[in-house]
Amino acid sequence: MVKKIAVLGAGSWGSVLANLLVENGQQVALWTHDPKQIPEINTQHTNQHYLPNFQFHPELRATVDLNAAVADADVILFVVPTNAVRSVAEQVRPLLAANGTQPIIAHAAKGLERGSKARVSQVLADVLPASLHSGIVVISGPSHAEDVATKDITTLAAASESLAAATAIQKLFMNPYFRLYTNSDVIGVELGAALKNVIAIGAGALHGLGYGDNTKAALMTRGLAEMTRLGVKLGADPMTFIGLSGVGDLIVTCTSVHSRNWRAGNGLGQGQTVQAVLANMGMVVEGYSTAKVVHELAAELGVEMPISEAIYQVLYQDAPIREVITNLMQRAGKPEFDFQVTGLQK
Amino acid sequence: MVKKIAVLGAGSWGSVLANLLVENGQQVALWTHDPKQIPEINTQHTNQHYLPNFQFHPELRATVDLNAAVADADVILFVVPTNAVRSVAEQVRPLLAANGTQPIIAHAAKGLERGSKARVSQVLADVLPASLHSGIVVISGPSHAEDVATKDITTLAAASESLAAATAIQKLFMNPYFRLYTNSDVIGVELGAALKNVIAIGAGALHGLGYGDNTKAALMTRGLAEMTRLGVKLGADPMTFIGLSGVGDLIVTCTSVHSRNWRAGNGLGQGQTVQAVLANMGMVVEGYSTAKVVHELAAELGVEMPISEAIYQVLYQDAPIREVITNLMQRAGKPEFDFQVTGLQK
Repeated sequence: MVKKIAVLGAGSWGSVLANLLVENGQQVALWTHDPKQIPEINTQHTNQHYLPNFQFHPELRATVDLNAAVADADVILFVVPTNAVRSVAEQVRPLLAANGTQPIIAHAAKGLERGSKARVSQVLADVLPASLHSGIVVISGPSHAEDVATKDITTLAAASESLAAATAIQKLFMNPYFRLYTNSDVIGVELGAALKNVIAIGAGALHGLGYGDNTKAALMTRGLAEMTRLGVKLGADPMTFIGLSGVGDLIVTCTSVHSRNWRAGNGLGQGQTVQAVLANMGMVVEGYSTAKVVHELAAELGVEMPISEAIYQVLYQDAPIREVITNLMQRAGKPEFDFQVTGLQK
Repeated sequence: MVKKIAVLGAGSWGSVLANLLVENGQQVALWTHDPKQIPEINTQHTNQHYLPNFQFHPELRATVDLNAAVADADVILFVVPTNAVRSVAEQVRPLLAANGTQPIIAHAAKGLERGSKARVSQVLADVLPASLHSGIVVISGPSHAEDVATKDITTLAAASESLAAATAIQKLFMNPYFRLYTNSDVIGVELGAALKNVIAIGAGALHGLGYGDNTKAALMTRGLAEMTRLGVKLGADPMTFIGLSGVGDLIVTCTSVHSRNWRAGNGLGQGQTVQAVLANMGMVVEGYSTAKVVHELAAELGVEMPISEAIYQVLYQDAPIREVITNLMQRAGKPEFDFQVTGLQK
């Protein structure tokens, strides 16, 4: 049966997910805060800034009227930048109360909130009524919007404390090229999604500095280990980090030119300033603010995260990128598992 | 102090490792069975077939005289193709007996032996005297020879039952761009090295068929899970598969054009026959014979390995590659951890 879904956020990922749901026969309202996006999406059926040369299904409709979007929605899917989730949820809360609806709340944001250091589902639970908390679903996996747009076979995790909610989301999205797998580890899936963006800035930096495939693979391997160490401290299942939302998303983000975080790192490696890189992207680079949150969490919890810390130093402390990266990759040899997975073996 | 090292095998990896040891100040004899390689290596200091445009250190010397190479060697490093290890070891055995030497035995081969289904250290232990067994060292990690040749920072595991032997090997190789980490899980390191070549054929096939980054990341993630499942059944530590010789080598082999296994898969995906792909490579594609061994091991041990099995069907059963790969990637949605890491959670 057809479901009504409000997709909040018309960036590249929100637009592609909304379009896919329309193609799957669902009834979709794509909400954006920016009225300038509306005529292009509704009339030309494109979103050139975020998805150049992609043509939407003609029935996809965008709106700036949040109440119209969520009023009788069965599902509300947040796909706004991480640091905008709280303010959008605060706008949604009174509408839910006024309408008396109990939609499934889902999100596809990949970051940690500045200041609170919260995961996105924690931000949503902070703001939205308690009756909705256990059904919050995060969808995440190796899924560049550009590749979903061209119907590349894409696999993701749909994680929730509620298997019923995860299964409902799975059913909405599932089609021959978009495959969701249910998962109960919300913490691990959200942390994999967020933490890998910092490592991807590092992978891009290596590329920009002229390093090759061996060095990038070493950075990704050690990056996965430090992501897992922090994740375990925060309550994640270490196994989640070798799943789609962990190593899968890490691989695609660190090796694809479609990744903004990778491109940001590449620019830094080529000698651009942080300010220039962020200004030129024209989209949110989630890894930038996540790097600061990771720096704070690692210090607070006493977790060794040398790659994330190096990226933090480059982004926030004007550390010289070539020295930082060279030092990082040349640390003295020692037993592999001292440096790699300490804290992972429970 | 300077050590004498016999490097057996003058392919791309053997040549680069021998050259690196010379640069590190060690005394090296590079053995090859092929007399045609000798004048080029010793006079022109190149090995164009395996390492185009790379100039060796002028002191690197190759020989076809196996006894001269191993006579007073402190270390014998096997870098011949997996299916040649046994015959070379059988030539080495009487020389060790005649010379009365007790060298450290190391290898850097990445496969499983046809027929016996043995790991390379098992083949070496089958042939060489028992007094040398516990000191056998395997070195493996994300390390394309071409990238080591250009001094890309490269990290590997040096695994042995003997920490002393692993540490000795680590010291020989260590320099600012070549970093070894000791590890005690010989089984896991050898299996990671071997099994990832089969997955890399699959990743290349996806590319040849026109799939994008999302699909490749999904294949690598699921590939890592099935490698780990088989590894655990064979006695490996599951954690090794998220280390350098597991996910690290998987990433570099599945994403770099330098990988022969990836290139073989890419050719298959583009419609070439298995025979044409193997004939055109001009070097051993380890994943080809390993795929058959993996097929046999998985059946024998009852381990589900859908990706490796699909590649086996393509390589040995004339299965149509597009259908096989599409079926593989579109399997019905289910809980992520049913399909991903069953058998991994001990």
